[in-house]
Amino acid sequence: MLNDSLYPKSFASDNHAGVHPAILEAISAANEGGAPAYGGDTATAVFERQVKDEFGDAAEGFAVLNGAGANMVGLALMLGRYDGIVCADSAHIATHEAGAAERLLGVKLITVPTAEGKLTPGDITARLGGLGNPHESQPKVVSISQVTELGTCYSPDEIAALAETAHAAGLYLHVDGARLANAAAHLDRPLRAITTDAGVDVFSLGGTKNGALAAEAVVVLEPSLSRGVPFLRRQSLQLASKMRFVSAQLSALLTNGLWRANAAHANAMATRLAEGVAGLPGVSLAYPVESNAVFAVLPEKVTKALQERYLFHGWDEQTGVVRWMTAFDTTPEQVDDFIHDIKSALTA
Amino acid sequence: MLNDSLYPKSFASDNHAGVHPAILEAISAANEGGAPAYGGDTATAVFERQVKDEFGDAAEGFAVLNGAGANMVGLALMLGRYDGIVCADSAHIATHEAGAAERLLGVKLITVPTAEGKLTPGDITARLGGLGNPHESQPKVVSISQVTELGTCYSPDEIAALAETAHAAGLYLHVDGARLANAAAHLDRPLRAITTDAGVDVFSLGGTKNGALAAEAVVVLEPSLSRGVPFLRRQSLQLASKMRFVSAQLSALLTNGLWRANAAHANAMATRLAEGVAGLPGVSLAYPVESNAVFAVLPEKVTKALQERYLFHGWDEQTGVVRWMTAFDTTPEQVDDFIHDIKSALTA
Amino acid sequence: MLNDSLYPKSFASDNHAGVHPAILEAISAANEGGAPAYGGDTATAVFERQVKDEFGDAAEGFAVLNGAGANMVGLALMLGRYDGIVCADSAHIATHEAGAAERLLGVKLITVPTAEGKLTPGDITARLGGLGNPHESQPKVVSISQVTELGTCYSPDEIAALAETAHAAGLYLHVDGARLANAAAHLDRPLRAITTDAGVDVFSLGGTKNGALAAEAVVVLEPSLSRGVPFLRRQSLQLASKMRFVSAQLSALLTNGLWRANAAHANAMATRLAEGVAGLPGVSLAYPVESNAVFAVLPEKVTKALQERYLFHGWDEQTGVVRWMTAFDTTPEQVDDFIHDIKSALTA
Amino acid sequence: MLNDSLYPKSFASDNHAGVHPAILEAISAANEGGAPAYGGDTATAVFERQVKDEFGDAAEGFAVLNGAGANMVGLALMLGRYDGIVCADSAHIATHEAGAAERLLGVKLITVPTAEGKLTPGDITARLGGLGNPHESQPKVVSISQVTELGTCYSPDEIAALAETAHAAGLYLHVDGARLANAAAHLDRPLRAITTDAGVDVFSLGGTKNGALAAEAVVVLEPSLSRGVPFLRRQSLQLASKMRFVSAQLSALLTNGLWRANAAHANAMATRLAEGVAGLPGVSLAYPVESNAVFAVLPEKVTKALQERYLFHGWDEQTGVVRWMTAFDTTPEQVDDFIHDIKSALTA
Repeated sequence: MLNDSLYPKSFASDNHAGVHPAILEAISAANEGGAPAYGGDTATAVFERQVKDEFGDAAEGFAVLNGAGANMVGLALMLGRYDGIVCADSAHIATHEAGAAERLLGVKLITVPTAEGKLTPGDITARLGGLGNPHESQPKVVSISQVTELGTCYSPDEIAALAETAHAAGLYLHVDGARLANAAAHLDRPLRAITTDAGVDVFSLGGTKNGALAAEAVVVLEPSLSRGVPFLRRQSLQLASKMRFVSAQLSALLTNGLWRANAAHANAMATRLAEGVAGLPGVSLAYPVESNAVFAVLPEKVTKALQERYLFHGWDEQTGVVRWMTAFDTTPEQVDDFIHDIKSALTA
Repeated sequence: MLNDSLYPKSFASDNHAGVHPAILEAISAANEGGAPAYGGDTATAVFERQVKDEFGDAAEGFAVLNGAGANMVGLALMLGRYDGIVCADSAHIATHEAGAAERLLGVKLITVPTAEGKLTPGDITARLGGLGNPHESQPKVVSISQVTELGTCYSPDEIAALAETAHAAGLYLHVDGARLANAAAHLDRPLRAITTDAGVDVFSLGGTKNGALAAEAVVVLEPSLSRGVPFLRRQSLQLASKMRFVSAQLSALLTNGLWRANAAHANAMATRLAEGVAGLPGVSLAYPVESNAVFAVLPEKVTKALQERYLFHGWDEQTGVVRWMTAFDTTPEQVDDFIHDIKSALTA
Repeated sequence: MLNDSLYPKSFASDNHAGVHPAILEAISAANEGGAPAYGGDTATAVFERQVKDEFGDAAEGFAVLNGAGANMVGLALMLGRYDGIVCADSAHIATHEAGAAERLLGVKLITVPTAEGKLTPGDITARLGGLGNPHESQPKVVSISQVTELGTCYSPDEIAALAETAHAAGLYLHVDGARLANAAAHLDRPLRAITTDAGVDVFSLGGTKNGALAAEAVVVLEPSLSRGVPFLRRQSLQLASKMRFVSAQLSALLTNGLWRANAAHANAMATRLAEGVAGLPGVSLAYPVESNAVFAVLPEKVTKALQERYLFHGWDEQTGVVRWMTAFDTTPEQVDDFIHDIKSALTA
Repeated sequence: MLNDSLYPKSFASDNHAGVHPAILEAISAANEGGAPAYGGDTATAVFERQVKDEFGDAAEGFAVLNGAGANMVGLALMLGRYDGIVCADSAHIATHEAGAAERLLGVKLITVPTAEGKLTPGDITARLGGLGNPHESQPKVVSISQVTELGTCYSPDEIAALAETAHAAGLYLHVDGARLANAAAHLDRPLRAITTDAGVDVFSLGGTKNGALAAEAVVVLEPSLSRGVPFLRRQSLQLASKMRFVSAQLSALLTNGLWRANAAHANAMATRLAEGVAGLPGVSLAYPVESNAVFAVLPEKVTKALQERYLFHGWDEQTGVVRWMTAFDTTPEQVDDFIHDIKSALTA
C-alpha cells in the first residue's frame, strides 16, 4: 500500500506541505450551524473587510479555489476577444496551466525571454508594435509573477515602473501572486507596497502554498474592472458553494500576520539551504535566492543520487539546474539533513 | 456585524449545510506530514480504489473541486467542437452554471421541455434530425440529472432505456449526479445500479451537498474516454494542488456508507416535511418528493410571511411554486417547527 | 456526370440563384491593375461612403464574406464572456449556423418560442429575470431576423419598440439582415427606416441572397461599438485579402437601387406563387407572405410528387409545411409552371 | 477621390494583384442558371475530382474562403482541447492571423525560433518533453509554411523527415500552403511531391495569391481526419453558399497548369528583382530567394525614398530588412523600373 510517510523528505514543492493548524482550526470554527452559500456568509464578509484593510478601501477580494483559477478569472476581466497578454516565457500561465489561457480566455500569450524571470519596461514597449494592426493580437495586459517562477522578486519600484509603462500604453498590469506572501516577506514590505501602491490593477493572492488547504483570491484594485468577477468566477468553475470554508482559510492567513510568518519561515529555510550549499565544489546557484526556492546547478549523477531519497524536480536537463522548494512546515533539521546528504552525494 | 446564526432556519439549499464531522476528521487525518501534490498521494489512491469497488473495475474516478467543474470536465471528454448536448431545459448545466457549457465547451445545449425534469427516449430521438447536416450542431451527448432539478429520480430501467437509445444513435449518456447519493438512497439501490449497470458512460459524483466541504468527482465508466481527464481537469481549473484533502473527503463518504446515511437522512427530512404539509388547505406539491427537495405551491402572501423567518427560494413566480431543501444535518425538530409555522402562516 | 442544368427548377433557396450581371460587371471593373489589400482600396472607400449615404453619417460598414460571418462579427462587438443573446428559437443563429454562436462567441442563446418568427417586447422582458444573478447567463443582446426565418417582416414600429425595450434594460438590438433588402422592399420603406431610424445598434446587411457572388456587411450604427470590428473581422476569418472584389459587389447593390429592384422582384415572384396556389383544395399558407418565401402546407404525397421535379425543402414533417423560395432571377414563367404542376399534383 | 491607379507600383503583397482573366472567365461561366448551394453543384464536383487527380485518390478537397480559414478548419480536425501546435515563431498562424488559433481553436502555439523560417526534426523532438504532463499543452500537430514567411522552401525530403518525426511521436503534419504553388514551381516538382508523397496529413491549398479572387482549400490526405470538415467549415464561417463560384476559381487554377504558370512567373519576377540588385553597394539579401519574395537589407534612407513611390513593407526595423513581393501579373518592365529606381536611390 502506498504510504505518504515515504515522502517526508520532499523539497519538490510548497504544495507538498499540509495545512497550517490555525487554518484547520478556522475551517472547524466555520462549521457552526448553517450559512448562506456562495459567499453570503459572515466568514466571507470578514475576509472581504480584511482585503480592504490590507490593500486599501478600493480593493475588492473574491475567494476562488486554486491559483490557475485566480489567474484566469482575474485576466478575463481585462481581456477582450482579440487581445493578448505580454508575459515572461517562464510565466506559469504560459508554461504550467495546461493551455488554460488559450482555451478559457482565447487569447495569445506574447511571451518574452527573460534573464531571471522578470520583465522590464523595455520588454513591454518592444511588444507594442502590433497595436492597431488588425492582423495581430492586441497587447492589453502585462502579467508578471511575484515571486517569479525562478524564485526572484520584483522590487516595489520595478513593479511601479512596469505599471507606468503599461498604463501609458493603455495596458493593464496583472500579478500572478501565488507566492505574493513570500515576496512581501523577502522584501520586508507590506503586501500593499507591491500591489496597490505600485499601480497593479488586478492580482492573484495565493493562499494554498502559504499554508491553506485550497484557497486563493482574485483581488481587483482598479474599480472599473470588478463588476464582472461574480459572473466570471461562477462561469470559470471557481465559485465554492460552501464558500465560508474558503473564506475562513484566507481570513486566517490575513489574521495576525500568519501569512507573513509562514512565508518568512519558508524563505528562511530556503536561505538556510542555499547558504548550506554555497561554495561546495560542484554546486552553484542559478538565480538569486529571494523567496522559498533554490535553483541549484548540480552534476547529473549527484542529482540522480539525491533523488533516490528526496523528492525534487529537475528544472533544465541541459544545464543541470534543479529546483528545491521549502514551505511553512519545513524544519531546520530537514534542511540540515538535506545539506548533509548533498555534501555526501557530491563527494561520493 | 453579520452573524450566520441568524440563518439557522434555512430550507434554501443543501449547500447551506456545513461539513459532516467525519469528513472534517478525515481532512485532519490527511494532514500528517507532506504528500505529493496533484494526486500522487495515498488518500487519492485509496479513493480511486473505492471508486472501483463501488462502480466496477473499469470505473475511474477523478476528484475535482465543484459540481459545475465535474460536469464540464466530464462532458468535455465526449464532445468535439461541432457537437451538442441533449438535456432537459431545466438542467443545471443549462440554467445555473452561468453559461459555462457554452463558454468552456463551446457547444450547443439542445434543450427539451419536460414534465418533471426527466428526459425520455423519445425526447432523444426527436432531436436527432440534424445528424449529418453541416448547418446544425451534432447531438453527441445526452445529459440527465439524477436527482433532477425538480427533485425527481430516474429509475434504473429509465436510465437504461435512455442509454440504449443514446448508444444506438452513437451518442453518450452523461449524468449530472450532484445528488446521486440522494437518488440511490431514495431508490434503495446501490450507486452502481443507476450508473454502471444502467449503461452510463460518464457521470459527476456529488460530495459537497452530501456533507463534504468541497469535493466532487468525475467518474468515467466507458474506458475509451478516460485518457483526457488529467489534462482537461488541469486545464479546466479543477485540479487541487493539495489533492489529498479533496480525496480524503470523497473517501470518507465512500467509507461505511456515510454517503447513504447522509442522503437517506436528508431525504427522510424532506418526506417528513412533505407529509407534514400534505392536505393543508392552500398547499399542494408541484412534483413527487423523491429526494431531499420539496416543491410546494403556496399562496404568495404565505410565501412572503414565511420568508421573513426562513430562507428558501421561490421557484416559479407565476405558479407560486417554492423550493424547500433539506440536508444531512436538518433535524426533525427544525422540520416540525417549519411545518408549524407554515400552518400558522396559512391560517393567519 | 453531374449537370446543374438538371436543377433549373429550384424553389429551394435564394442561394441557388447565380450572380446578377451588374455585379459580375462590377467585379470585372474592379480588376483594373493592382490595389492595396484588406480594404485600403478605392472600391472599399466607395462602399463605405455609400453606407453612410444609406444609413446615416454615424453608420460604419465593414464588408465580410458570408452571412454567418456578418452575424458572428457583429454580435461579438456587443458580448462579453458571460453574456447571452435573446432570440427567436427559429433564429438562423440558433438553428442553422452549426453552433457558431456557442463556439465562436462562447455565449448562450436564450431562445424564445414565437408565433411567426417575431419577438415582442414582452418576450424580452420575460427573459431578464436572471440579470445580476451570477449563476445565469446575462442577457446583453436581442437579436432579430429581418426578414424572419418564416418569411415575415417586422414593421419599423415593431423594431423601434424592441429597441426601446432592449435599451431600457441595458441590452443592444442586433438584426440579422441576410434578407434586409426583401423586408425594405416589402414594407416599401428605405433601408434606414428599419435600421437607423428604428434604433438598431448593429446589423448584418445581406448581399449574397440579393444577387451578389459572396458579399455581406456588418453595419455598426452605435458608434461606441465599431472600434473592434477590424480586429474581430480578421480574427473571425471574415477579412478578404482582395477586398476590392467584395466591396465592389456591395457597392453595385447600393448603386441605383439595384438591391431594391432585385428584392422587389423576388418578393413579387413569391406573391405570384402564393396567389397562384391560394384557395386550391389541399393547400394552405402557414405564414403571411411578406418577402420572397412561401410557406405552404401540402399533403405529403403531393410534396413527394413535386420534389421529383423541383428542388425545395420540407420545413416541418409533422405539419406538412414546405418552404418555397424565389430569387432575383426567378421568372414569372417558372412560377407559373410551378403553379401548374402543383395543381396537377394536387389532383393526381 | 481615392484612385487605385496611384498604386500600380506595389511590391507589397501578392494580394495587391487582381484576378487572372481565366479565373474571371470561369466565374462567369459558372453563372449559368441555378445550382444547388453549399457545394452540391457540378463545379464543386469537378474541383473535388481534380484534387484527387492532383494529390491521389485518398485526397479530399474542401473549398473555403480565405487562407486563415483554411488553416483554422484544417488544424481543428487534428486538435483536441488540450493540444498544442509546434510551429516556427514566424508562422503566419502565430503572427498575422490576429490570434485566430488561440480564439477559434483554443490551443497553444508552441513557437520555435528558426534560421530561415524552417523547422527541423530536432525542433520537434525538443518540444515533446511535456507529453503526458497534465500541466502542459500536449503537442499534437506540427505546422509548417510552404513557402515560409521568409520566402524559403522546404525540399520534399525535408518535409518527409518532419512527417516521419511527427508521426513517430503521434503528431500530425500540417502545411500552411498559402503559396504552395510557388514552392512547387520553385522546386520544379508536382504539388503532390511536397504533400501526399512527403507524408503530409492536412494542408491549406492557396488560390488567392496565385491569381484567384477569393478561393482556398483544405485538403485532407489522412482519411481518418476528413469526417469533420463539413461541420467545422460551416461553423468556422468558411462555407460559401454560392459555392460554385469558389470551386470554379480553384478548378481554373488546377486546369492546364494555370497554378504553375502563375507561380512560376511570380517567382521569375522575384528572381529578376533579386538578380538586379545583387552586388549593388548597400544592398544585401536577408534570405535565399526561393519563391516570389525578396527580403533585402537596405539603408533606412533608401527605404524611405523608395517608399515614396512604391508600396512595400518594412520587415524588421532594427536590421533594415524590407520585403518585396511579386505576383502573377508583375511585369518585367515593372521589375526593371524598380531596379532602376533602387539604384538611383542608393546613389542619391
